[in-house]
Order: sequence, then C-alpha cells, then structure tokens
Amino acid sequence: MERERFGLEWTVGHSGSPDEEPAFRVPAKVPGAVQLDWAAAEGWPPFYEGTNYKDYEWMEDRFWSCRAVLDAPALSGDQRLFFVCMGVDYRFEVRLDGVKLHEQEGMFTSFELDLTDRLAPGAKLDIVVFPAPRRPGAERGRAEAAQSCKPAVGYGWDWHPRLIPLGIWDEAFLEVRPALHIRWAETVCRLPVPQEGRPLQADVCLRAVLSQPGGLLRWLVRDPAGNLVAERTLRAETGDVELRLALDNPALWWPNGHGEPALYTSEALLLGEDGQALDRSVSRFGARSVRLVMHEGAWNEPSSFPKSRSNPPITLEINGRRLFAKGTNWVPPDIFPGTLDKGRYEELLEMARDAHMNLIRSWGGGIVNKEVFFDLCDEKGLLVWQEFPLACNDYEAAPDYMNVLDRESRSIIERLRSHACLALWCGGNELFNGWSGMTDQSPALRLLNRNCFDLDPETPFLPTSPVTGMGHGHYVFRDVSTGEEVFQLMPAASCTAYTEFGIPSPAGVEQLTTFLPAEELYPPRRGGAWEAHHAFGAWEEDTWLCEGLIEHYFGPHRTLEELVERGQLLQCEGYKCVYEEARRQKPKCSMALNWCFNEAWPAAANNSLVCWPAVPKPALAAVKQSCRPVLASARIPKFSWREGEWFEPQLWMLSDSPEPVPAVRLTAYLVIGGRRHALLDWTCPELEANGNAPGPTIRFRLPFADTGGRMRLVLEAEGHSEWNSSYTLLLKPGEDGPRRQGLNL
Amino acid sequence: MERERFGLEWTVGHSGSPDEEPAFRVPAKVPGAVQLDWAAAEGWPPFYEGTNYKDYEWMEDRFWSCRAVLDAPALSGDQRLFFVCMGVDYRFEVRLDGVKLHEQEGMFTSFELDLTDRLAPGAKLDIVVFPAPRRPGAERGRAEAAQSCKPAVGYGWDWHPRLIPLGIWDEAFLEVRPALHIRWAETVCRLPVPQEGRPLQADVCLRAVLSQPGGLLRWLVRDPAGNLVAERTLRAETGDVELRLALDNPALWWPNGHGEPALYTSEALLLGEDGQALDRSVSRFGARSVRLVMHEGAWNEPSSFPKSRSNPPITLEINGRRLFAKGTNWVPPDIFPGTLDKGRYEELLEMARDAHMNLIRSWGGGIVNKEVFFDLCDEKGLLVWQEFPLACNDYEAAPDYMNVLDRESRSIIERLRSHACLALWCGGNELFNGWSGMTDQSPALRLLNRNCFDLDPETPFLPTSPVTGMGHGHYVFRDVSTGEEVFQLMPAASCTAYTEFGIPSPAGVEQLTTFLPAEELYPPRRGGAWEAHHAFGAWEEDTWLCEGLIEHYFGPHRTLEELVERGQLLQCEGYKCVYEEARRQKPKCSMALNWCFNEAWPAAANNSLVCWPAVPKPALAAVKQSCRPVLASARIPKFSWREGEWFEPQLWMLSDSPEPVPAVRLTAYLVIGGRRHALLDWTCPELEANGNAPGPTIRFRLPFADTGGRMRLVLEAEGHSEWNSSYTLLLKPGEDGPRRQGLNL
Repeated sequence: MERERFGLEWTVGHSGSPDEEPAFRVPAKVPGAVQLDWAAAEGWPPFYEGTNYKDYEWMEDRFWSCRAVLDAPALSGDQRLFFVCMGVDYRFEVRLDGVKLHEQEGMFTSFELDLTDRLAPGAKLDIVVFPAPRRPGAERGRAEAAQSCKPAVGYGWDWHPRLIPLGIWDEAFLEVRPALHIRWAETVCRLPVPQEGRPLQADVCLRAVLSQPGGLLRWLVRDPAGNLVAERTLRAETGDVELRLALDNPALWWPNGHGEPALYTSEALLLGEDGQALDRSVSRFGARSVRLVMHEGAWNEPSSFPKSRSNPPITLEINGRRLFAKGTNWVPPDIFPGTLDKGRYEELLEMARDAHMNLIRSWGGGIVNKEVFFDLCDEKGLLVWQEFPLACNDYEAAPDYMNVLDRESRSIIERLRSHACLALWCGGNELFNGWSGMTDQSPALRLLNRNCFDLDPETPFLPTSPVTGMGHGHYVFRDVSTGEEVFQLMPAASCTAYTEFGIPSPAGVEQLTTFLPAEELYPPRRGGAWEAHHAFGAWEEDTWLCEGLIEHYFGPHRTLEELVERGQLLQCEGYKCVYEEARRQKPKCSMALNWCFNEAWPAAANNSLVCWPAVPKPALAAVKQSCRPVLASARIPKFSWREGEWFEPQLWMLSDSPEPVPAVRLTAYLVIGGRRHALLDWTCPELEANGNAPGPTIRFRLPFADTGGRMRLVLEAEGHSEWNSSYTLLLKPGEDGPRRQGLNL
Repeated sequence: MERERFGLEWTVGHSGSPDEEPAFRVPAKVPGAVQLDWAAAEGWPPFYEGTNYKDYEWMEDRFWSCRAVLDAPALSGDQRLFFVCMGVDYRFEVRLDGVKLHEQEGMFTSFELDLTDRLAPGAKLDIVVFPAPRRPGAERGRAEAAQSCKPAVGYGWDWHPRLIPLGIWDEAFLEVRPALHIRWAETVCRLPVPQEGRPLQADVCLRAVLSQPGGLLRWLVRDPAGNLVAERTLRAETGDVELRLALDNPALWWPNGHGEPALYTSEALLLGEDGQALDRSVSRFGARSVRLVMHEGAWNEPSSFPKSRSNPPITLEINGRRLFAKGTNWVPPDIFPGTLDKGRYEELLEMARDAHMNLIRSWGGGIVNKEVFFDLCDEKGLLVWQEFPLACNDYEAAPDYMNVLDRESRSIIERLRSHACLALWCGGNELFNGWSGMTDQSPALRLLNRNCFDLDPETPFLPTSPVTGMGHGHYVFRDVSTGEEVFQLMPAASCTAYTEFGIPSPAGVEQLTTFLPAEELYPPRRGGAWEAHHAFGAWEEDTWLCEGLIEHYFGPHRTLEELVERGQLLQCEGYKCVYEEARRQKPKCSMALNWCFNEAWPAAANNSLVCWPAVPKPALAAVKQSCRPVLASARIPKFSWREGEWFEPQLWMLSDSPEPVPAVRLTAYLVIGGRRHALLDWTCPELEANGNAPGPTIRFRLPFADTGGRMRLVLEAEGHSEWNSSYTLLLKPGEDGPRRQGLNL
C-alpha cells in the first residue's frame, strides 16, 4: 500500500535562451542548486572561502536545463505514474521530450504531473529554470526582487553575499499510485480558548481530495502515546471528502517550557470496494489555541486627548495562557536551500530549544522552509512566526506580481496551516519603514491579509514587523553616534515587543580559519575576505566587526584570539542585557527575538548566535542563561566602570514559568581580581506564575584592583543554583589613573 | 420604455410573535418607521418634545406587521411584476398571503421578488419586522447592538435618546418590467494617478446583469455637458455583460474647492432583437483617483532605535493632488432614517459645501445613507469617508453575526463603490480603543478588509478611526480636570489627522423653545427635558451644556439669551482655533473633522454645527471662516486675558488653495471697548499652492477698558478683505481688580 517512489538521475547545463540546448551537461544533485552542480563538475573550491562566491555571479542570468531520463516502471492496469516536485527555484518550464507540460513562477508551489500515458521509453524530462528575476530598472541589490516572490536575501544583504540560488530546491521523484488515490489530505485541529473549570473539546477535521470518487475513506486518530482514540469511515461519493470529530479534553500541544508538545496522528486510509487498502496519508496535529491579545494595562493607553488608538496586541496567548515569547530571528540556514535536510534543521532547532526559546521568527527576506522544518518545530514546541517573502522593498501591485503572490501565498498557507507550531502570519519584514515604503494601503499586503483570512482565519496576521508598539534594533552594543550602550538604551525603551535586536561579534578563531585565507587572518583588513564576509562596511561603517568599539572598551588587541574573545564578550553581555531587560518590561513587553539566530554562510562577524552551518558562539550559552524560565537578574547601568564610582545595579527575580516560584534568598557579590566583595542579600518573595519581582538597588563604591580590567557580578540563589547568574563587566582605573580608595579593600 | 412603478398603501399593526395577527392595524407611511405610524394614528404629540420619546420604548420589543394589499396591474404577455424594496430595518420576513417568500437580517441589503405568477386578486403582502436586535446579556445601551449590523446609535448615545427605529426605511414599490430586463447595472470608472505632462486615460467599465440572455445592450456615455462621447453595442449572449471603454483626458471630478465635480452620464439601453428599447439604466460617474499617501517627512519618523513603523498614511490625494481635508462628522440626520429624503439631505449638504468642507465622515454608529445622499455628494464635490455599522463595541465573531456582516458589507460596497465621492472605507468608530476592545486581529474587521479588497480594491480602507497618528477629541472647550483649553491643547498636539474634535454649545433660544416645555426653559435644570436633550450628564458630568465652564469665563448668567450667546461664543472661537491650528500643522496634519455636523433630534446642547433638522448655529459660520481656502489667521495662546498681561498671538497666512497666493500685507489690531489698538503690520510673502506661512508674534501689553469683558483681534489683508479674520476673546480686570496701566491707553 505504500506508494512506490523512484529517484531520478539528473544532469544540468546552461544556455542563453529557454529553447537553446546547453552546450553540455554535468551531473546534478536534486534537491540542490544549479550553481553547486556546476561548481562541483568544474572542481571549484568552496564558494564560501575567501571571495570565491563572486565567481558565481554570471550564473544568475543563464537558462538552466535540468534533465532526467525517465525509465518508466512497469505499471499494472490501474496504476498511474506521477512526477512530483515539491519546489523549483524560481521561474521554470517543464517539458517532456520537448513538449511543455507546465510552467510556473514561484518556488513555494509544488506541482505534480500525471505521466502515465505520456512516457515513451527513454523520455527526457526537462525542467528549464529561467534567470533569477530582476525588476527592470531596479538598482543592484534587494530592490531587484521587488516584483517577485523570490526571497530578497539572495540579492545581497549585510550578512549575505549576492548569490542567487536557482534550481530544483526540494524533493522531485516519480511515484506509482493506484488510479484511485489520495491527491491531497489535511488534518486541521481547532481548539477553543481553554477556560478554567470548563470541559474542553477540540474540533478535528480531515479534508481529502481523491483522484476520483469511489472507495471508503477510513480515518484513524491516535493520541500521542499511539492509542487509537477515534475512527470514522465514509463512503467517498465525491472526490472531496470531509470528516470531523470532537476530541474531549485532548492532550494539549504546549510550546517549549510550558509543557509537552503533544502530537496526535491522523491516518487517512483509502480502501477499495473490496476492503483492500489502496492508499494512505498520515499527518500529525496538535490541539492548541493561539491568539494575539492585549497586555495587561494596554487599554489604558493612550490616556490623553486627542486620543489615538491603543497599541495593537502582540502578546501570544497559547491555550489561554499568556506567554513571554523568547526567541530569535531565523534566516535561511544556507545560501542554497536545496541543500537543507532534516539533519541540518534539527541541529539548529535543538540549539534553539535548548536555549529555552519558544518562538522562531522566520524572516521575510528568506525562504519559507521545507516541510521538515515545521515537523521539527511541532515536535520541539517551537512556535513559528512565518513571514511571506517580502522584505525591505516596495512590492507594488503590478498584475503579474499580484498573481504570483496570490498563488504562492495560497500554497504557503495551505501547506503550513495545519502545523501546531504555526503561530503567526506576517506580511514581511520592515515594510512600513521608509526604506521599504509600503503602507497599510498596499494591495500586496491587503491580498495577504485576505488570503490568510480566507484560508486560515484563526491564526493571527500581522501586515509586517514592526507594527506600532514593536521595535527593531538597535544592532550594536553601543551606538557610536549617541554613545549609548544597550545597557542604557533598553531600560529607556518601552516596546511591546523587541522583534529584532542585535549585538554583533566576530566568529570563533577556528571558524574564521575555515574561510579566511591564512594570510588575511590577522589583523583584519578592509578590502579582502574579512570585508566580503561582512566584517567591514556591512551595515554601518564599522559593522559587523566593530573593531573600533572593541578597542574603545579594551584597548588595542594583539592577537586574533584576543580580538575575538573581546568581541564575543560584548555580544554575550549585550544579549543578556537585552533579553533580561525585555523580560523586566513585562507585561507591556511580551516578546524578545534577537537578530539573528543563524547564518546562511560563514560571516566573519555577525549578530548571529550560531555560525554557519551550526557552530554555536559563546553568546548562545549566554542567551540560554538569560532565557531560563527562572533566574536571578540585575539591571546594570553600564558596561564599563571606573574605580571610585558608585556601582548601582538593581536586583530582580525573573520568571516566565507557568508555575509559582517559592521565595528565595539572593546573595549578590562582586568578584574583582579573585577577591569577593559582598554587596547585598535580598529575600525575594514568592512569585506568581509568569511573574517578576524587582528587588533593591545595590550601592557600592568600586575599589581598584589590577584585574586585567574585568569584574564579575554574581547572584546566587540559596538552594537553587540553577537560578544563579553572573555578569562580566569592565573595571578600569579612575579618570586620574590608578589609585587605592581604601574604602572597600 | 420607462418602467412603470406603483406605490402601495400600507397598514401596520403589532403583536407579540411573528405569527400572531396584530389586534388592529393603522395606516403606515412607507418609507418611514413603525413608531411614527403608530404615534400618528394615536395622535401622540411629537416624540422630540420634552421626554415624549420615552413613550416609544415598548415598541422595540414588538413584532410589526406591515401590510399592503396588492392590486396587480394588467400585464402583457412578456411582462413581469416585481416587488422591489430598498431596505427594511432590521430583521424581517416577507409573506404573500401567509406564505414566506423571503427572510433577512440587515437593513442595507435591498431585495426584489418576482410576483408575476404568484398574485391572487387582493393578495396580502406582509413584511413582518422583528423586535430590535439585542445581544443577550448585554447591558442596556449600545452594547446590545454588538452582534448585529443595526446602527448602535439608536440604543442611546450622548446626543441621541434610546429610540430604535424599525420598519420599511427605504423605497418599496411594485414595478412592471419586460421579461428581458436589466436586473442590475453599474458603471465604474478607474483613473490612474494623473502625472504632469503625461496623457491621461480613464478606464470605464459597464457591468450589467440581465434577467436572461438575449437582446442588444447599447451603452451611451455623455460628458458633463451632455455630449455623447462614446457608444458601444454588444449582443448579450449571456446574462452577465461587461463593456469597457477608455476616455482620453477626461474632465476630472474634483472635490469642493479644487475644481468642478465633473460627472459623466452612463446609459445602458437594452434593445430587443427588433431594435426596440426594452429597458434602461442610467447612472453617473466621475473620473478621479483617490489614495491615502504619506505626508512629506513622514518616512523620517521614527528616527531612533528600537525603531517602530512610520505612521500609517492619512493624507488624501485626489487626482495626484494632496488635499487638506476639511470636513465634519455626519450622524444620521434623523432618529428615523425612513423620513430622510433628497430635500433633507440637500439642505444639510449645501451647508457643508458652503462652509468650504470637502470631506464628510459618515460615522459608524449611524446608518449608511440612502442613495440620494451619495448622488448629492457626487454633485457637490463632497468626499465621503464611509464607515460600516460598527461603533464602540467589541463585535465578536459569532458565525451568525459574521454571516450578516458579510452580506450587509457586500451590499454596501457594491452599492456605493461607483460613486465618485466615495473616498474611504472604514471598519467603524473607535474600535481599537478600550471602550470597544477590538484589535487588528478581530475577525469582523479582517472580513471587512477582505470584502473591500475583493469588491473595491482601489478605494483606501481603514480598519477604524482613529488609527495610529490620528486623534479623537477633545470634546470640550476646556478640560476641567487639567484646566487646559483647546487654545493650549491643539498646539501641543501633533496628529496626522484630527478626525473628531468637538466644542459644545447650547442650541439657539428659538430652537430650544420648540422642544423644551416653557416652564423648564430657564434656568436649565437637571432631571427634566434639558437633561433628556443632553444638556446634563450626557458624557462627562457637565456636558453638553457646560454651564459651569460658561460661568467660569463669563460669571453668572441672568437670561436664557445670555447663557446661549456665551456658550455659542465658546463654540465659535473653539472651533476656529481647532480648524486653524490643524491647518497650521500641515503637512504632518492633513485632516480636520469636527464632531459633529448635524443632529438626529433636537439636542439642547451638543457639539453639532447644525441643529436638527437643519438649523445652523453661529459656529457653522465661524467654521466657514476658518475653512476658507485662504485666510489670515492667528495662533492665540489662550481665550481669557487680564489687563496688564502680554498678549502674544502669532500671525499666519493659511492656504490650501490649489493656486499660489500673492504676497499680501496684513494689519493686526485689537478692538477694546470700541477703541482700536494697532498691533503689527506684516507682509506675507507669496504662498505656493497649498502652502502656509508663519508670521511674527505680536507682543502687546493689555490695557484695561470697561468692555463688557470682551476684546476682538482683527486681521486685515490689504486688498483682500475676503481673507480678513477676527477673533473674540475675553479681557478681564487684573488679578488685583481693575486698574489702568497707562501703557497703551
């Protein structure tokens, strides 16, 4: 009964027009990218080394013909042979022995072709991939993507080279199916918002489209432990089948940190008239409700006349419980998304889960990930904020573009809406800012709102990020123009959600050696591989290495190790400050997502927590500390201190745990040059679920010690070492040079 | 060829259930309201006198059977007889001799019934109107309207008694049509945004639905002068017909103050096979583009990190020209909208046009007006911001409500979208504020956005008013809690649009005598007719009479005339301040709409400019002064002055004229007790189109004079007396009592 699938052997060649035969072909890996195939065949060194990626640029303007020679399997009388393709990047035609069978623009709409009666022996199936789309007249860069659904990031970003993938980027295979088979099936579970003390019922719906009317559809639903909990059978009088059932008090799907991400299994079994199994479709679903709700007190603002609206809601409420969303911005884990598989996704998603994250913003400049990404997020309790492929451009409403956007967005919504992890649709990235120029009136965004409402009305929709109340940035530890550090910027901010904030650091030394030529490694210089890998001039002048800033705090560096260690320390302490301060601003703030989690290629310096392909930076561990459900925390006025100054951090206990936290005694001390200075003891009272407590503010005169310039603030929770925290800060000599105060020594 | 129409004689009676025959019936006026019929039959005094309206309350819970006995006209063989009804308020069934033919919830969807083969002689057509909808469990008041499309205002508002109209509120008649006739026709004109120096072409589309395929459809388009400019003929092979034509360089439709509101005529003529005219549909259209665009400089904000979005656009751009929208909030001109006819609408709309207004916000608490309202706005160049019937409630997404909202909103959109005046759709009033509790995620608003996008994608859509950047309020001359006057509040505000602001005043003395019992007329007292007519406790304690505030400025009043004159002076000067200050804040601000223009019944005190039914207050003339395309203006720090203070108004020239304004010399002087004090001369340089100029700030030491407490600031424009302005302010003795400064006397 399992469908028989056949992989195909592919070759690829390029030419100057869609109908010109390539001069020659080379072996192709599917899924993959034409660029990788070509480079492999030519024996090129890795594209990510040095400035090799520049050698690929000519490829974006060629027509690429991907060919498989089909040897049709023997079919029994009522069997059909399908060619199934999950995605081709980006515009393409499909031809069988030169006859066009299909054409499409857009990488997110799968297609299948019934080849049963078309296959001559040795038939040639060609997928002709057109040049990367480029908006006529657009200046070089992301603006070239502004009239297509091609992810804009490939045209170059401040952490991504210009390298525009093309080719068959998702599974493609032949499949034998019985004539009567399941063309498409989906199980959607709707859960009302649970209410204390009231019985709860999930509404589960199986929808299936059969290739033709006929047969029996048997539906089997199993609980997370594998026990059969419901069974329904329907005679399929028409090709469109819908079955519903109610699950009483279902096991709930919870995000990471809030409970188990319980997943039910839904099996649709198509039986012939004689009862034999013909076809089968299995999927999983989770019972959970999701809403964006107003935070406590939100309706009280604005309070004065003339009165505007209250901020739009951004607090995620899952199963009736308001969450503090701790998470990150997800970018394509590879320049060539065709290379992504379960292993690559899983390695990264494990790191996010282990860092106590519960929300992944899948950024609109990149791809909509493959199915397995969402399966893994379902399993790991990682909520997904999914953006459509619009970012930092004005996507104007030309009819051709609107047609592609309409079809691609419908495909995306229909593919993802049944995933428990899918928490939020969003039109795209920073579209309501000046560098994009779109507004609430932009037809492309009204179309996306329309399609989401029509196809998935229960999932919240944001037109873009940020909307009012939310903030993006800053992206540096210290703003050179204002002199303000995150330590000052964040407490002064008052956003409902920090949906992008970044602190850059260099990659680790070992990582740097994998893609920087040895002779360029140290000291970093402009104009070469460091700059190509975004260490210089990527966004603002000094980004992302921020060498000047590192020297501002630490003085000149003497080795690569020293430079990297210092930059990474800033990233660690900066990210801790932002996550913890965002949590302190609860309930007005209910979300903190750093920019960014991962990388599409190895950046020499970047805001990422994890280097390409999956190499964690120290900041990942630091963020993990700040994202613990319960922790002792300090609001620290600044990073760099001098002897004799009054050190005045405020103590806090932070919790977003769904359980109350018992009272605990905190001890704060400062470690300076191996010596421990007691600061304060504070007994924090019991915290209610998801409740913080501000504590006292320390006031301590800083002594001088020859510490190598650092000190460490340590918070210890009596009997709960898992809540302990520590912060590394700078301690420098007084303005007038080193001296001994005698006060505290 | 003109269709023959027959009015009907109606009677009405009430009962306790839909199937119970009324005990007796009385004559009914259609269109009208069952309440008015009943009161007329019983010989009741006017509902608007004293507290008579309270006698009507029982009526909202009854079933009202409206009956017409049909005497069918003689029909020739191929003629059909239709019953056509433009609207029944609110939920109803239609029965013919007891057989249900139609049922509906919603007053904004017209219906027609083919009765040709159904009519026995003397057949009884009953329209059974159900009780007014009331959300179960809702507290008394507007919240009862929160699960229906019934305008919420009837349930009581701070300027509207609780009186919920019911009945046939729009035209209802029998009509004889040929079997082959035009069921529905619409002419829609789309104009691209005109661009300097480029040819302009309007796309005009006639869509018609015929009762059956067949015949020829001839389409005749005439320009505003009546000349035939295009003609098309199509054989109607199907019942759905679409014809298009391009109009080169069409005469543009311009809003009031910007040019002529040119209207073309579209005539669809249905011809039989033999060429004889069977049926005809005539409508008008205007060639104009409309967009909401960002104001100059809008993209520069916000400027700091964390960075939120820029404000949504609210600047109206018509035919490529950005307007300053001067206008007003329109409420139902009568509690019983069934009584509204062309004459009532025209009287009010003439006043708005003559006051230089160009935008009418048709507020979501009230009705969507009858067709003739929009015809008149088309003719007078009054843009319409049309809200759907949602206001100040949380309209939750129960399936029944969503179905009614879906159908009613589609009917509204399809009826109005072809009007040149229709500039803006809006989900409803103040829905994103705490007292409503809806958000961007509310399904009802996403549905409205969806329907507007599907059916009228080129007209801007706002989910509600206010959205970010826009402001509602204040609604008083002076906020008692802060002591702040509009003179301080407005310059401190920084909105993109002031879409509601109110300054109340009592109605005129003559007007008051028409509905207040003589014995209650003076002094105004709580608990009686003054309070029932919103003079006391309507919104905040003192509203809308604000007697305490009037006494704060003027001391005790001794006659009704004195009280009214003082209250009306505050309204005049307050509204002048707000309109002129909003204009000064251009380009960030591009809209000023006072709350409100008119009234649904006679209020004793109200923010209205025009008393019910169409009696202008002095404030209408004051607003007209402030809305002149070009005027001399002053930013005045406060209303009430004392001798010896420094009087420091700033001079301005304001223009929203589409033409430049030549340089002009302004002379400012102060009239105190008949004596004229020269203040300043200023030569204002030439103004560009739609350009203001700030001028110098006067500094003048106020003398004492026994002026009755008033002084007048006069601005004269040399050679342009039409730009002169004057402001009446208070001048009181110094803190220490009257004295003579000698400085300026």
